[in-house]
Amino acid sequence: MQSCDTLLFAEIIVTQNESRSIIYNGGIAVSEGKIVCVDTADAVRSQYTSENTMELGNSLLMPGLINSHTHAAMTLLRGVADDLPLMDWLNDHIFPVEQNLTAEQVELGALLACAEMTRYGTTSFCDMYLIEDATYKAVDQSGLRVLGGEGLFVFPSPAYPDFETGIKLVREMEAKWRGNARIRQAVMPHAVYTTTPEILTTCREVAEELDLPLHIHLAETPAETKACLESFGKRPVEYAHSLGLLSERTTVAHAVDLTDDEISLLAETGTNVAHNPESNMKLASGMAPIQKMLAKGVNVTLGTDGAASNNALNMFTEMASCAFMHKVQLLDPTAATAQSVLDMATCNGARSMGQADLGSLVEGKQADIIAIDLTQPNLLPMHNPVSQLVYATNGAEVHMSMVAGEVLYQDGKYLKIDYPALIEAAKDVAKWVQKKIQKRS
Amino acid sequence: MQSCDTLLFAEIIVTQNESRSIIYNGGIAVSEGKIVCVDTADAVRSQYTSENTMELGNSLLMPGLINSHTHAAMTLLRGVADDLPLMDWLNDHIFPVEQNLTAEQVELGALLACAEMTRYGTTSFCDMYLIEDATYKAVDQSGLRVLGGEGLFVFPSPAYPDFETGIKLVREMEAKWRGNARIRQAVMPHAVYTTTPEILTTCREVAEELDLPLHIHLAETPAETKACLESFGKRPVEYAHSLGLLSERTTVAHAVDLTDDEISLLAETGTNVAHNPESNMKLASGMAPIQKMLAKGVNVTLGTDGAASNNALNMFTEMASCAFMHKVQLLDPTAATAQSVLDMATCNGARSMGQADLGSLVEGKQADIIAIDLTQPNLLPMHNPVSQLVYATNGAEVHMSMVAGEVLYQDGKYLKIDYPALIEAAKDVAKWVQKKIQKRS
Repeated sequence: MQSCDTLLFAEIIVTQNESRSIIYNGGIAVSEGKIVCVDTADAVRSQYTSENTMELGNSLLMPGLINSHTHAAMTLLRGVADDLPLMDWLNDHIFPVEQNLTAEQVELGALLACAEMTRYGTTSFCDMYLIEDATYKAVDQSGLRVLGGEGLFVFPSPAYPDFETGIKLVREMEAKWRGNARIRQAVMPHAVYTTTPEILTTCREVAEELDLPLHIHLAETPAETKACLESFGKRPVEYAHSLGLLSERTTVAHAVDLTDDEISLLAETGTNVAHNPESNMKLASGMAPIQKMLAKGVNVTLGTDGAASNNALNMFTEMASCAFMHKVQLLDPTAATAQSVLDMATCNGARSMGQADLGSLVEGKQADIIAIDLTQPNLLPMHNPVSQLVYATNGAEVHMSMVAGEVLYQDGKYLKIDYPALIEAAKDVAKWVQKKIQKRS
Repeated sequence: MQSCDTLLFAEIIVTQNESRSIIYNGGIAVSEGKIVCVDTADAVRSQYTSENTMELGNSLLMPGLINSHTHAAMTLLRGVADDLPLMDWLNDHIFPVEQNLTAEQVELGALLACAEMTRYGTTSFCDMYLIEDATYKAVDQSGLRVLGGEGLFVFPSPAYPDFETGIKLVREMEAKWRGNARIRQAVMPHAVYTTTPEILTTCREVAEELDLPLHIHLAETPAETKACLESFGKRPVEYAHSLGLLSERTTVAHAVDLTDDEISLLAETGTNVAHNPESNMKLASGMAPIQKMLAKGVNVTLGTDGAASNNALNMFTEMASCAFMHKVQLLDPTAATAQSVLDMATCNGARSMGQADLGSLVEGKQADIIAIDLTQPNLLPMHNPVSQLVYATNGAEVHMSMVAGEVLYQDGKYLKIDYPALIEAAKDVAKWVQKKIQKRS
């Protein structure tokens, strides 16, 4: 018998291991933040003991979900401006607020996002925003994992007066947070239409020099393609490739407006794609050709985008939306199977973050685990766990979220966040946001 | 000061009254199952007292949602067969189970559906199924409202050996449940491809004679259109109209494959349309031209369809899917506004059910009220209540559901259903369903 830090037992374990095993009446042993054993409950009980045993009964254990593209602090803008033409939305509502954001406000918005993601089963996310250092502070407190990056533009942001200072800030932040197991960094030029070829080249060079991932919005809309053709004589994917941006290091968010040749280019270069179906539908950007990408071997991951264009950071409802969108897009009910969508939200996301130790419940991997309450009426009866997770689960059935073996949320309580204080702070910031918008309009 | 049965107070009331008023710090007085006052909390407190006062604090009160098209007992088949071609799904999985269903199993499946709908804020639904009398029993127990109907086919069903017996059964059930305030009936021929012109004509005559609503699946897929043209020389809407089926009495479910002339016909005849976006996406049926219908004045309502093709009976996630689908369908972010979608799920649904006393919180109407917990992280901050309900709410924030002034669910507890027994029964029926399918395949 070996001792371990934590034992978890539950009726079903969806491992997302290589053979996609599902274990009925299963157990997981965790030590020093990592999984040391995943097996039937009997097998685990016969090998391990622990002073901290979670008997979760009629629950399902699975890897924490990975939100591959978001702007966490945009929770501050949730629902402030919906159903508007894109340019009204941006110019009259989003930008007037963002231009005036303080580090304290970004930290608050990001903490709210962390609370939401923790509550609904997301344990890692990829984040691009302004004053990203403030987001890291929120993530540090919340216990989640992030791969983050300061959004880099050709124009000033609240975090820096010009790109030179911005890229310097990236280097400073990288040095500041280096070695943090949960807070990792990427170089994040915002998009082709908010940067220059020189900026994108510098971003690539810095990413290579510091061996960091690179993340950029790309090919989100036909309007972006048109502008890119006008400015640089190339479509966005071609243009990014001409600057050496496409590689296994890189994740491109959205990838909606693509030609077949561009899909091949993404596949050949090993570029990851963060697909954001709800945002793409809500902003009427279009339907990304995900099935073609998967067929060519592109690593497709799933993200919510920010709360201003979704309006939730809920990876369970995002999974359902993803499957729904692609079935109707192709008029094929066999497209975007539940298993393929769950893969996007788990192991594919881990790969795009450069973290092979996330995304599945396997010995040696990080103990990032969530528990789903199977007694909720929408999860009865239980014919097929993976179908249930993708099509029937709304995320609120998550009753325990754990990162690196540490419980962050359980049975309605946050263990790392002063949630009542967060509710009050959110009310105050709502008033400030509304004033900024009223002043503008 | 007047006494009333129940007083409810909450931070926000979304009334869905004619001017779509939202009341901050509001109150509702209820007596004999109806709303007697909706106003600011101060105004209500100055006029009414009650021994039963619900101080709901940081909550939002709204009309219970109306699910305009479902097959409640199909919860039994939730997730049993997803991501399959339509004919494999029907012939190898759905039909082998349905052909063998007993009244007890239908009642169990329907009770599970009622538990799910109650939990996630649906208080009324329109239901077509086999052995519908068993569904009525479940609804009677659960406290919800239903407009139901025995599914009528040209072939035998577990409820009857032939249509003549089937329509007789409809008359018997109508007599049996007549006068029940919560259980109302409609005549429900299944579809044009499972009936004959004679059956549809008889259905219309019986509906007119007994003054009942009429409900039918119509124009769900291009394949249905093709078959209808081959069999009857007309497209489904034209064909239904030629038999006198289109009228204000009638709700057609799906209405995906329509010409502009057919949309005009639906508008001119006052026919209601029950739109099922998630089912239409999941089964790859197509995207219904809802914006055109609304522009021509068709009363469009919202439904989940059955749990075998959704797979949840959650009207909150259905509202989001509805808005998302139509924005991307038209590539217009201003299409399917949050308010228009909330209307589909409330007042439009009430109209299609022939129940003008449902769907809004207005004096004299039924006290069918749900409360949303506004302290959940996905509902913070609160900039716009209607946007929040449609885009950010997942349904699990519902912490109280009331029908006709009676609380059915509150804070995790069902007041009319033995929920632990239901969980156990669902496990048993799952085994039976799986055996039926294995035997077939």
